[in-house]
Amino acid sequence: MTTMDRDILIGGDIGGTHMRVALVERHGLILHQSRAATDVQAGVPDVVKRLVRQCLEMMEMAHRMGRRVCAIGLGVAGKLDRRKGAVLFSPNLPPMNGYPLARDLRRALSVPVVLENDADSFGVGESLLGAGRGTPNWIGLTLGTGVGGCIILGGRLWRGDELGFSGEFGHMVVDPQGPLCACGLKGCLEAHASSSALQQGVRAAVACGRLSSGPLHAACSSNALTSELIHHQACLGDELARELFHRVGWTLGLAIAGLFSALGIRHAVIGGGVSNGWDQFIEPLMDSVARHCSMLEPADMVIRRSELGDDAALIGSAHLAWLQVPAAVNGLQSHTE
Amino acid sequence: MTTMDRDILIGGDIGGTHMRVALVERHGLILHQSRAATDVQAGVPDVVKRLVRQCLEMMEMAHRMGRRVCAIGLGVAGKLDRRKGAVLFSPNLPPMNGYPLARDLRRALSVPVVLENDADSFGVGESLLGAGRGTPNWIGLTLGTGVGGCIILGGRLWRGDELGFSGEFGHMVVDPQGPLCACGLKGCLEAHASSSALQQGVRAAVACGRLSSGPLHAACSSNALTSELIHHQACLGDELARELFHRVGWTLGLAIAGLFSALGIRHAVIGGGVSNGWDQFIEPLMDSVARHCSMLEPADMVIRRSELGDDAALIGSAHLAWLQVPAAVNGLQSHTE
Repeated sequence: MTTMDRDILIGGDIGGTHMRVALVERHGLILHQSRAATDVQAGVPDVVKRLVRQCLEMMEMAHRMGRRVCAIGLGVAGKLDRRKGAVLFSPNLPPMNGYPLARDLRRALSVPVVLENDADSFGVGESLLGAGRGTPNWIGLTLGTGVGGCIILGGRLWRGDELGFSGEFGHMVVDPQGPLCACGLKGCLEAHASSSALQQGVRAAVACGRLSSGPLHAACSSNALTSELIHHQACLGDELARELFHRVGWTLGLAIAGLFSALGIRHAVIGGGVSNGWDQFIEPLMDSVARHCSMLEPADMVIRRSELGDDAALIGSAHLAWLQVPAAVNGLQSHTE
Repeated sequence: MTTMDRDILIGGDIGGTHMRVALVERHGLILHQSRAATDVQAGVPDVVKRLVRQCLEMMEMAHRMGRRVCAIGLGVAGKLDRRKGAVLFSPNLPPMNGYPLARDLRRALSVPVVLENDADSFGVGESLLGAGRGTPNWIGLTLGTGVGGCIILGGRLWRGDELGFSGEFGHMVVDPQGPLCACGLKGCLEAHASSSALQQGVRAAVACGRLSSGPLHAACSSNALTSELIHHQACLGDELARELFHRVGWTLGLAIAGLFSALGIRHAVIGGGVSNGWDQFIEPLMDSVARHCSMLEPADMVIRRSELGDDAALIGSAHLAWLQVPAAVNGLQSHTE
């Protein structure tokens, strides 16, 4: 076995609720993965300690297989300073803001660590092995607590001016008269098409007296509202839930139509937890994108669902780490971007 | 003089009102230019005949200087089939739709002819010698009868999937409740920030009885309304005119903010006739872009005014023609994109 054959990666996805970490082959095969609560309320040092423990377990597992973890890639939602390996602004992990996460992990684990935006990691994963395979130019949208996004151009992740963000479709204003977003703006895509927006839609219906009984009302009262429950109720025919998913599709269509017109492309891939409600939003989405893009025939637009689900970000962050490890470390000359 | 030194280009810009044609050095210097009415009502064969005559004059002038026109680039608003050299859909020149303009000119002039979107030509011109010089990634917006746009990435024109359009920011919906656009959609940027939108704003004020006297009313009645007059009235303090220019800035800010968030960039260049009203819209534009982009600090956003004005599209279309002429024709091996 050559040095390069021994090399293996860790890909991670640090979300507001869970941290997931995986042992990933260079070309994307996941060998093992683990999940732990993020529990950011316990404090950032505690989060980092548990993350280090998860990574150490993966490194030991690699060692038992005669392999060596040569780099770690971590996907995090928010604006990042990739050079310093620090989170600049993370809407779902505010205590993490300014924290040099990559530096601390590198010190604890003696392995190069790179931070990546979670939606960018998703994009690279889907591009490598999922719904973006073989499509040079496409946009990706991840519908979770917030709405993340990525742009793949010429088969590569587009990083813009390296300002720490790109593909932030969630914070494009789709309706200046729309609801308030977590970022402070009004009418962002995220305020219509995220799991937070679905939940907020139910809460608003309770507050204005439109919803006064039933499972959604009960879940709202007991603080147990989830996008899964709202989707389930939509499938059972609940009118409010159907309307909320209709709005998800309609606003996604508006945003995607604008991006197709702007970028001169015709492919999009949608992932994230809320995309499990596909059956409830794809029809209004296709109507909306056809209605809002005067440049393309509806038949030419391709909107695909993520093929890798939660694995996309793990595969993508591992791959991005591999691309960025200096050639000297992993015995290759020319695999960097 | 080598063959290459003899080579010179023609750049053209075919607008709804005027056709402009220029003799352009390979690196962008304009030696001479001429302008003629487009008068598309006279029929496409007549338009082409006059365009051929304009080009022939330029070719004769080149000949007298001991030079040779090696390619012609023509900027046209709309969706194009660049491979076939045909206009697919031109909002300002509907009789031109489907017409193989490049083929007919090539036959008449025996010189390679390429069609380019006029806003893309603008972008290449400004990138080469104007406000985009030295900035690798930026978006351009041309505010004329309609709103055109272009994307420059890594110093090059981004053509997307080669679908015949890219950078069509004018047809991004900035307000789903906004006015009807010429393309059939509601609330496009073009329906707020073009010279047509300014004029339509005055006509709507007359129709609803808000405007019943004064220079704008008179111009409206005599069908002599122009964006220049509306700008002049705004400078004199006319409230309606100021509101209309405020809306230009506000909606441009909305669109640019969304594009900065999406592309992860921070530079824009604005040109076209309506940009002569800069003093009346730049303040609301800067307010709006700062308010609608949660990813960037206002101080980091750079919005520049076109430096080349009407010359940008002539220089850009000539340069694009030069880049696409086969190496064999102009004696070079490696200047193509």
